[in-house]
Amino acid sequence: MRIAELSSRSGTSIPSIKFYLRERLLPPGEAIGRNRTEYDEGHLHRLRLIRALIDVGRVSVANAREVLTAVDTPDLPVHDLLDAACHSLNPPSRRDTTDPAWREARADVVTLIREAGWMVDDASPELDQAADAISALRALDHEDLLEMLPIYVDVLKRVAVQEVDLLVSRAEPARTVEGFIAGTVFGEALLNALRRLAQHDASARRNVSNPGTALAGPDGGC
Amino acid sequence: MRIAELSSRSGTSIPSIKFYLRERLLPPGEAIGRNRTEYDEGHLHRLRLIRALIDVGRVSVANAREVLTAVDTPDLPVHDLLDAACHSLNPPSRRDTTDPAWREARADVVTLIREAGWMVDDASPELDQAADAISALRALDHEDLLEMLPIYVDVLKRVAVQEVDLLVSRAEPARTVEGFIAGTVFGEALLNALRRLAQHDASARRNVSNPGTALAGPDGGC
Repeated sequence: MRIAELSSRSGTSIPSIKFYLRERLLPPGEAIGRNRTEYDEGHLHRLRLIRALIDVGRVSVANAREVLTAVDTPDLPVHDLLDAACHSLNPPSRRDTTDPAWREARADVVTLIREAGWMVDDASPELDQAADAISALRALDHEDLLEMLPIYVDVLKRVAVQEVDLLVSRAEPARTVEGFIAGTVFGEALLNALRRLAQHDASARRNVSNPGTALAGPDGGC
Repeated sequence: MRIAELSSRSGTSIPSIKFYLRERLLPPGEAIGRNRTEYDEGHLHRLRLIRALIDVGRVSVANAREVLTAVDTPDLPVHDLLDAACHSLNPPSRRDTTDPAWREARADVVTLIREAGWMVDDASPELDQAADAISALRALDHEDLLEMLPIYVDVLKRVAVQEVDLLVSRAEPARTVEGFIAGTVFGEALLNALRRLAQHDASARRNVSNPGTALAGPDGGC
């Protein structure tokens, strides 16, 4: 197809497509004749992935390029692919790892994960991210919200087992990798949206039974 | 305390503090004498909240200002406060709401929520956000991941009821509002990090039982 059709089918403007081509997020089309370049279904799929990463996943252009490089290297062991993809989706945060409160939160996360019996590398950046959130909640005197931790651990174990079962049951390794990325980026967006909706529901029910302490009314969804 | 102490106790540089003062995220200190300004524990708490929103929550300066305005208006009904806070935490996405695939995903989310019996306003922006993620997964041929939806709905219901119980049991409305914001921003960061850790665990266990199809090894955490 020509770039105009690629644009209309993907819902992406021609200048944006040219930008993604220049930024090497999208591989070049096939030059046919002097002024004509052909694109195929692979380009359309890639363009949808780029838009989804940037618009829904709010991934930066630089990180999107890293993720796509991982997707494009299916001869690497799946393990290394995931590592690359995972690192691009985890931009380092501006944290002070020498702060005693942060170190305590980091140690608490490791204890939590060990007690749950999870097989996780002690150097996983997600442990740092969890420590960021825990130390922020403590510094702001919202320590009581950490009572949720055992419930989070319990429900996420159940969720993750099913997610991984779904992904590894796919035939092609490259589809597993793209699925892992899609499940991370869009699965998080979906879970976060559904969690807020569930909170609206829970506070609406509170409102009905006890208007004085309600968090939000049934029409109070935002 | 002087600005130097505010800086060291909050782990925020003096130029950053001056920037937050200029941007009206942080209220001015009390001018004492010609060249001296005093800050108090309220400033320190506010500064920690600002840093947490921006560094952990990755909220923009403009959105942080809106959230803080909501926190600062405790004479408004809690319901309106939450509305304001919620809108600032939900920046509008670049979505095409006329796209039939998106509209179908939006209708599917509404059906899902109705079937779950949740009391949620049909105009909630979280329904749009869930539709963004669902239409992205479908456009990229990852529709099979949507088999997770009933599990997400089930576990998030359980999570939200406990979260809302925790928050509304607080004595002061202002603490409930800040707790709701903290629970949204840092709770999401925490849940997302724990979900990835749970996925590492689930794939590590897969690896042990079936090395050929493992998603990542026990040392493959990223």
